[in-house]
Amino acid sequence: MRIPYTNMQDTFEKVLVRYGFGGDRARLCATLFADASRDGVASHGLNRFPVFVEMIRKGHVKVDHAPALVATFGMMERWDGMLGPGPVNAYHGMARAIALAHQHGMGCVAMKNTNHWMRGGNFGWQAVEAGCIGICFTNTTPNMPAWGGSEAVLGNNPLVIAVPRKDGPLVLDMAMSQFSYGKISTYIDKNEQLPYAGGFDKEGNLTRDPETIAETGLALPIGFWKGAGLSLMLDVVASILSDGNATHTIGEQQDEYAVSQVFICFDPARLGSEGYIDDKVNDIIADLKASGTFGNAPVRYPGEHTLAIRRENLDKGVPVNAEIWKQVVEMAGQKDNFSK
Amino acid sequence: MRIPYTNMQDTFEKVLVRYGFGGDRARLCATLFADASRDGVASHGLNRFPVFVEMIRKGHVKVDHAPALVATFGMMERWDGMLGPGPVNAYHGMARAIALAHQHGMGCVAMKNTNHWMRGGNFGWQAVEAGCIGICFTNTTPNMPAWGGSEAVLGNNPLVIAVPRKDGPLVLDMAMSQFSYGKISTYIDKNEQLPYAGGFDKEGNLTRDPETIAETGLALPIGFWKGAGLSLMLDVVASILSDGNATHTIGEQQDEYAVSQVFICFDPARLGSEGYIDDKVNDIIADLKASGTFGNAPVRYPGEHTLAIRRENLDKGVPVNAEIWKQVVEMAGQKDNFSK
Repeated sequence: MRIPYTNMQDTFEKVLVRYGFGGDRARLCATLFADASRDGVASHGLNRFPVFVEMIRKGHVKVDHAPALVATFGMMERWDGMLGPGPVNAYHGMARAIALAHQHGMGCVAMKNTNHWMRGGNFGWQAVEAGCIGICFTNTTPNMPAWGGSEAVLGNNPLVIAVPRKDGPLVLDMAMSQFSYGKISTYIDKNEQLPYAGGFDKEGNLTRDPETIAETGLALPIGFWKGAGLSLMLDVVASILSDGNATHTIGEQQDEYAVSQVFICFDPARLGSEGYIDDKVNDIIADLKASGTFGNAPVRYPGEHTLAIRRENLDKGVPVNAEIWKQVVEMAGQKDNFSK
Repeated sequence: MRIPYTNMQDTFEKVLVRYGFGGDRARLCATLFADASRDGVASHGLNRFPVFVEMIRKGHVKVDHAPALVATFGMMERWDGMLGPGPVNAYHGMARAIALAHQHGMGCVAMKNTNHWMRGGNFGWQAVEAGCIGICFTNTTPNMPAWGGSEAVLGNNPLVIAVPRKDGPLVLDMAMSQFSYGKISTYIDKNEQLPYAGGFDKEGNLTRDPETIAETGLALPIGFWKGAGLSLMLDVVASILSDGNATHTIGEQQDEYAVSQVFICFDPARLGSEGYIDDKVNDIIADLKASGTFGNAPVRYPGEHTLAIRRENLDKGVPVNAEIWKQVVEMAGQKDNFSK
């Protein structure tokens, strides 16, 4: 089942207005959810939307709260997200980092008390569409063990790195867990083992069994001790720069809210002559794509397939889980007259 | 065999002076090599020193070249490393990033045409000793495949993230390969398999066999496709910000030289009241250390053991490979009258 992108946007917007979002913010938040589904990341688009509404209902997401500037230090700003909607806050954070980078070549925004940004890649795309290199990361509730640990004390702390390019930007959007719990669920649904070890059983053995990992809650950090270390450091840096919650204090809450995020931007136009970036990145990608492979498919760069998926979904409609779509349409108080 | 730290410093310095290093630069470079061995990273200290000298002999490392400022954009500086000695150049890069952060809260230095910085952790320690959060990364010659690739096209591009703390800083120093080729060599020497898959055989299967990986040159990126993506992005960002070589152009050279590096610093003293960082980091570490474990040892944070190793090695002397030490002492044109 596919739904036209603009109808998805409109439907999300109607729901958000009903929940008290002001006009521009409703549109922006709806667009960010629709963009995730449009770009093939439904897990943080449509499929996450009902969870987001639940967080509004519980009072964790304050729909009418806009971020407030706490302090400015040169090219760096510290903001309080005021528990506002995560995607809207994160868009604001990256917009400020872009503005600082346009002005100074580089900018950094740290934000405390914000909420789950849903698809982090959205803010990488936001940076590259403004011609900037964008780097952002967030902490999360504890969901991975430290190396050797038998309980979840680390967040999977997603990291986004995006680089602009005329023929399609490079956008890396990765959590520090080998597989997300969303991905693990899909393997449970398919009744299949993960292709590689994705977590630990209750004796501390690595396992490919998705049900076991869902039970223990011990997802595997990428690269074992290395991803565990990197995840910890991202949490430490995000909580220091924002003066906000760290993963362990988020974990003391009933739900995941009031997280800390960092947005860093570089404006390449301030760093060199027109076109030099594209030349450089095109050469790197050409070399990468020329790599010999063990299979038939050429190797890929991060974000390579996004534009093709986007084009297809704008053309044919955005694929949806029919049940979740029905639920959202009902929230919007309208009949489903959108599906193709 | 153990050698007093200061004697190791003096010996390195004598060699470097013989190879044409000016006084202060000889001392600094010698200290950075000695620090690596003192902190338990002999692979990038004493054991690497003869390779470094070989790079001087080949003319890739220009001992008397100091980095030159190319451009300044607000809190960001771009430098040309002029093919000078990597450790000295990197120390200069981080020193400039620290100075910018002290002034503006944040600073960034990108450096092209520099050389291998040896132990990256040195520059994390440099940042925390100045009270700063330090982040730095470098590209390298190709030594890992892209995901699905059958040839090395990515660098393992080490990344350092360091956070100051009175009771011992957090210093993460990690390459994007699951095991370094140095580590793989030690398993070959011990005639043991790696504890986890560390690369690919020539059919593209994951393997724990160190000899196979040394033969194929296909070291495994951490987290499979994730580390491959992260490594690519670090290379792209380093080469853009510095306007320097990318991994593929470094790979076109006979040897690894003229690499690109980035140094980013934040000065927490500009970001909050005295002590708030320590409180925050201490709480995070206390939570981490309280984690249940599957074994007997408590979980560790990055850099946790460094201070203990350092104290022991300063007290008892720095452990050395006797053969390599003899070689370096001969380079210094002196008899070995240092060993305890």
